[in-house]
Amino acid sequence: MQKYFISEEELNNRIIDSSDSFHIIKVMRFKIGDQFLVSDNNKTYLVKITSLLNNKVSFEIVNEETGNSEMPVFVTIFQGYPKGDKFEDIIKHSTELGAYEFYGVMMKRSIVKIDEKKKDSKLERFNKICKEASEQSLRYHLTRVVDITNLKSIDFSGFDKKIVCYEEEAKVGEESNFKKIISSLNKNDKIAIVIGPEGGIDESEIDYLKKNGFIPCGLGPRILRTETASMYCLSAISYEMELRKWKYHL
Amino acid sequence: MQKYFISEEELNNRIIDSSDSFHIIKVMRFKIGDQFLVSDNNKTYLVKITSLLNNKVSFEIVNEETGNSEMPVFVTIFQGYPKGDKFEDIIKHSTELGAYEFYGVMMKRSIVKIDEKKKDSKLERFNKICKEASEQSLRYHLTRVVDITNLKSIDFSGFDKKIVCYEEEAKVGEESNFKKIISSLNKNDKIAIVIGPEGGIDESEIDYLKKNGFIPCGLGPRILRTETASMYCLSAISYEMELRKWKYHL
Repeated sequence: MQKYFISEEELNNRIIDSSDSFHIIKVMRFKIGDQFLVSDNNKTYLVKITSLLNNKVSFEIVNEETGNSEMPVFVTIFQGYPKGDKFEDIIKHSTELGAYEFYGVMMKRSIVKIDEKKKDSKLERFNKICKEASEQSLRYHLTRVVDITNLKSIDFSGFDKKIVCYEEEAKVGEESNFKKIISSLNKNDKIAIVIGPEGGIDESEIDYLKKNGFIPCGLGPRILRTETASMYCLSAISYEMELRKWKYHL
Repeated sequence: MQKYFISEEELNNRIIDSSDSFHIIKVMRFKIGDQFLVSDNNKTYLVKITSLLNNKVSFEIVNEETGNSEMPVFVTIFQGYPKGDKFEDIIKHSTELGAYEFYGVMMKRSIVKIDEKKKDSKLERFNKICKEASEQSLRYHLTRVVDITNLKSIDFSGFDKKIVCYEEEAKVGEESNFKKIISSLNKNDKIAIVIGPEGGIDESEIDYLKKNGFIPCGLGPRILRTETASMYCLSAISYEMELRKWKYHL
C-alpha cells in the first residue's frame, strides 16, 4: 500500500497539491477510486481518490488506520558527518529501521565542511529522503533531520539514555554496556546515540560526552563502518523490544 | 591496522605478488619496516616489510595474532537477487556485520537475469568486494559469494537453523519466531537465512522452503527493504550472542 505524508491543510481540504500529486498521477498512475494511505504525522487514514483535476488529487477518507509501526522508544541518531553521500544512505536505512530523528554533527574528524549558506538546501534534500523512506516503510511518524550542527551546540538534556558508539571500548573487551542499556529500556524512553565520522571520535569529544552523561559502548568485536553503526543499534533495539511485543506494547 | 588476505603460497614464500602489492606500495605507501596484518584465511599474522622490489612485497612474521573477531555461529545469507548494485552493498555491509558466506538466489520475483556466461566475472567482482570488506573490518575469516543460482539448486541440508524472512508473517502479528530461534542458538551452529528480492518471496517459494525445514520470520513491524533485512538479522545475532561474550565464547 502506498503512503504519503501530507500537510495538515491538505488533509483538512481533502486535496493534495504538491510534489506528491505528481507522484500519485504520473508515477503510480492512480485513477479515480484507487486507494492509498495519507498521514499528517498525527493520524493515518485510508483514502479514496474522488477526482484528478489540474494535477490536484481530491480524496475522501475511507477509514482511520489504527495500527502502529513505531518503535516503543524514541531514538535520536547524532551522526558524525561523513564523506560523500553516506549521510543520505544512513538516514534512508535508519528511517526504515525506526529512528525517530537525526542530527548531522560536525565532529573533529569530519572531513567535509558544511557551508552555512548551503545548510538549508541540504536539510531540505535530506528531509525529502526521510519523507520517502518514512512513506516506503509505512511509518506512522515522519522522521526528519533536525539540524546539522556542532557537538557543543546540542542540548543533550531531556534524554533518558545516552550512548556513544566507541570502538576503543570494544577493543578492551567491553562489549556489554550496550546490551545492559538496551535491555533495561522502558516504553517511551528517549535515547540519544552518538556515532563518529569515518575517522572515529576524538578522545576530547568522548570526555565531553561522558561529562554529559553518555556511556561509551562497543558494538561487537568487528570494526563497523560509520554508516553501519546506526543500523546495528536500531536493529538491536528493535530485536530487543519489538520482537517481544507483549512486553512493551501492551 | 591494515589487513590483507593473501594466498597460502604467498604466506609460505613471505612474498606478496598480487593486486595487494599495488595497494601496499601505491595506496598505503608502506615503507620497509612498516607493519600490517596478513591472513591465509586460516591464521592471522602481524608482519613487517623487509623489501619492496619490482612491485613485490617481502615480509617477515613478527607474531601470530590470536584474537578473534568472528561470530560464534556461521551465518549463510541466501539473498534473493536484487536490482542495480544492491547486491554489492548487501555483501559489503553484511561482511562487516559478520556473515560467513553468501549465495545470490534467482527467485520468482528477481527482475535481473544473470547471463550464465557472465556469472564467473560477476562472482569474481563480488568476491573482490568481500575480500576488501573482510580486510577492512579485520575479519579472521574471508567471506565469499559461493554461487549465484536457483532456489531449487541449493542443498539446504547441513544447516542447524533455517530462517526465511517473510513480511506477511509480520503483518499477522507473528514477530517472535525470529527471536525464539536466535535466542536458542548454540556456538558453532550453522544458520541459513533466506531473504527475498524487492518484490518479496512468492508463496510457492515459501511452501518449498517450509518443506525444507525453514521457519518464516517477521523482522518487526516496519517494512524493510531487501538490502536492509540481512543487516537487521546479523545485527540482532551479534547483539544476542556477542554482547554476552561470556556465555558463548568461553
